[in-house]
Amino acid sequence: MKAAIIAIGNELLNGISSDTNSVFIREKLIGIGIPTESIQVVGDKKGSIINALDSVAADIDVVLCTGGLGPTHDDITMRVTADYFDSQIGPSTEVREQIETLFRKRGVPVNRISVRNQSLVPEKAVLIPNLNGTAPGLKFSKYGKRYYFMPGVPVEMKNMFMQSILPELRKESNRNIYIRTVHTTGVPESVLFGNIEQWISRHSDIRVSILPRFPEVDISLLCHNGDKSILNDAIRELSQILKDNIYGFDDDTLESVIAERLINHKITVATAESCTGGFIANRLTNISGSSGYFMQGVVTYSNQSKIERLQISPDTLDKYGAVSAETAIEMARNISQLAGTDIGLSTTGIAGPTGGTIQKPVGTVFIGISVKGQEYIYRHLYNRDRLSNKLYFSQMALNHLRLLLKEHYG
Amino acid sequence: MKAAIIAIGNELLNGISSDTNSVFIREKLIGIGIPTESIQVVGDKKGSIINALDSVAADIDVVLCTGGLGPTHDDITMRVTADYFDSQIGPSTEVREQIETLFRKRGVPVNRISVRNQSLVPEKAVLIPNLNGTAPGLKFSKYGKRYYFMPGVPVEMKNMFMQSILPELRKESNRNIYIRTVHTTGVPESVLFGNIEQWISRHSDIRVSILPRFPEVDISLLCHNGDKSILNDAIRELSQILKDNIYGFDDDTLESVIAERLINHKITVATAESCTGGFIANRLTNISGSSGYFMQGVVTYSNQSKIERLQISPDTLDKYGAVSAETAIEMARNISQLAGTDIGLSTTGIAGPTGGTIQKPVGTVFIGISVKGQEYIYRHLYNRDRLSNKLYFSQMALNHLRLLLKEHYG
Repeated sequence: MKAAIIAIGNELLNGISSDTNSVFIREKLIGIGIPTESIQVVGDKKGSIINALDSVAADIDVVLCTGGLGPTHDDITMRVTADYFDSQIGPSTEVREQIETLFRKRGVPVNRISVRNQSLVPEKAVLIPNLNGTAPGLKFSKYGKRYYFMPGVPVEMKNMFMQSILPELRKESNRNIYIRTVHTTGVPESVLFGNIEQWISRHSDIRVSILPRFPEVDISLLCHNGDKSILNDAIRELSQILKDNIYGFDDDTLESVIAERLINHKITVATAESCTGGFIANRLTNISGSSGYFMQGVVTYSNQSKIERLQISPDTLDKYGAVSAETAIEMARNISQLAGTDIGLSTTGIAGPTGGTIQKPVGTVFIGISVKGQEYIYRHLYNRDRLSNKLYFSQMALNHLRLLLKEHYG
Repeated sequence: MKAAIIAIGNELLNGISSDTNSVFIREKLIGIGIPTESIQVVGDKKGSIINALDSVAADIDVVLCTGGLGPTHDDITMRVTADYFDSQIGPSTEVREQIETLFRKRGVPVNRISVRNQSLVPEKAVLIPNLNGTAPGLKFSKYGKRYYFMPGVPVEMKNMFMQSILPELRKESNRNIYIRTVHTTGVPESVLFGNIEQWISRHSDIRVSILPRFPEVDISLLCHNGDKSILNDAIRELSQILKDNIYGFDDDTLESVIAERLINHKITVATAESCTGGFIANRLTNISGSSGYFMQGVVTYSNQSKIERLQISPDTLDKYGAVSAETAIEMARNISQLAGTDIGLSTTGIAGPTGGTIQKPVGTVFIGISVKGQEYIYRHLYNRDRLSNKLYFSQMALNHLRLLLKEHYG
């Protein structure tokens, strides 16, 4: 089986948005052994859509289209499919009821005429439910090819694809494909590649991709034949090379790995952030069940709040400055004492773009961690733009926390 | 003039890399008034490349191709172009000399045979210099279309495009393109569309796109002819329809709009977050200069921290619960008093996926805002997944803050 993807939408061409849907679909198809042979992006124009459909190569089995299904004037895909697949358009009771249910759930007033218009579908289409929006997906068959049409709004497309389309395609694709993903952080892509170049050449039976996802780098392993043990053996070897730079596998996130360890060992955390502005508390509380380990956080942005909220000594601030190892460690120590937690974690730094000095340039961050009274301090320098800097700072802080948890609690 | 882009490369389809070249080219073309009508991504296969070239629509003037020009076995584009444009292949002295110069500059030993192979080009092609690599760009004309072929390595492509191709195209394109974006929040896409449907039909000279970017919806206006005043007049009309649902334009973000007002009026803010876990503090501090208005934040996740950190009355927590209007308003009041700020902003709710009750289901949030002693409380219900819920809660809180700032400070 081979696939082609067509993304429809003016916004994908006129610079307003980029086609992320095709990347998502392509990656999921790899996972079930279906290669994507072409991706096309066209505007919401009848001629363009038809030309794209016509130009799908003869040996393609499945055509996955996104975009242009929806309530606005731009959304012409549904009408184009009716033409292309020689179908009348008529109202669907099923779709109407789904839309009404969705509107009621969301507390949106139900306008009969508008709902009726939105429930028009090509009669030849097999409908695919949309749990996140009003427009159903459409499925057609023609000339031995199958065509799926999905909405362009990523959340609607993703859910529809994962719930209804991927399982259908998986059943038919009989190839055994095994994929595992290794998550690393703290090593730049180029250094990582140098470290694992030989390991890659030893495993010619595995397709290895290095995927930078700032501030992490994923290593994806794909194996077409054989069994899972080939991948697992290769990962064992890789773990010996990269050691602690690997933080997790597959669905793990840095936050989930930390949360698991905190929960298992009944460890509590509090945070005191300056330059990261609450980013770390936010990431730690992204995990369901975080109230079990995250007790409280403070974002002490001003010096005054550092003194009042965290009892940082004015002397420390005077002598070493707010951005200093001394302030960072006092912040970590004090927040864990004030909150009565096992661990206190702090950041203080310069997120930029202004505020740097020669000694402490923009991008400088001090991270303090107190683990049951033992104190650690780290200094990093990273300067791109303000938001990337904050993300990088929070990543380093969480990564140090992960490594200390391993050291202290195994 | 209209353009089509074709990106060639197996790596763009098999998950190793993504097609960033087309995004780059498309954006540069917009700047000189040339719309891109389609983007195609295909692998390094002769049939796929020819199919892509064949399927470019009849009304396209310029076809910009990237990838597959280079020294490795995958790079077949040059040979395919020779076939497609009926050209012999022969060695180019010009290219050979450029490669030798480049190699000498980089200290790479010059292998005569390898250099001769790399200097083979289709004789009918106009060559485009490549200052960053060995493969020259190629230009052909056929059936009234112009075709440019560039290497896929982004640095080579970008320099070649910017140095040689863009200036050539700019000369020929005499069009002025104006784009403006209107940012809204708080109105679902379908409701928004209903509200502005008539406005859209009144402005047939403007291309309007409605772009949901959860939890916001953008409205993009694009005008090919005439002058900026057409867009500005339409935006004035739109502002009268959508009023306060519009929070900003173009490069504005909800955070930047709030920051501007806070800075202009010298207003200070402190936050007390429960269910949003620091997300709001993080967003408020994403703006450079936020230390001027953001004084401090607390993330009081546990009841104990609400009592200790925020002096929330245990009676309030007992009687109404942590997730209640009463607790929310006490949090907002107390944080602004403790921090000595003009404004206190609080959230308390259930981010899920567990923890809901019949009275307060998952997705319930109470937002408290105290503005110089005047107190406001808002209740919202939104339930998708935990991360979306947190994002939605933070968006509602910031949007209420924006509207109150407008009300109080104009």
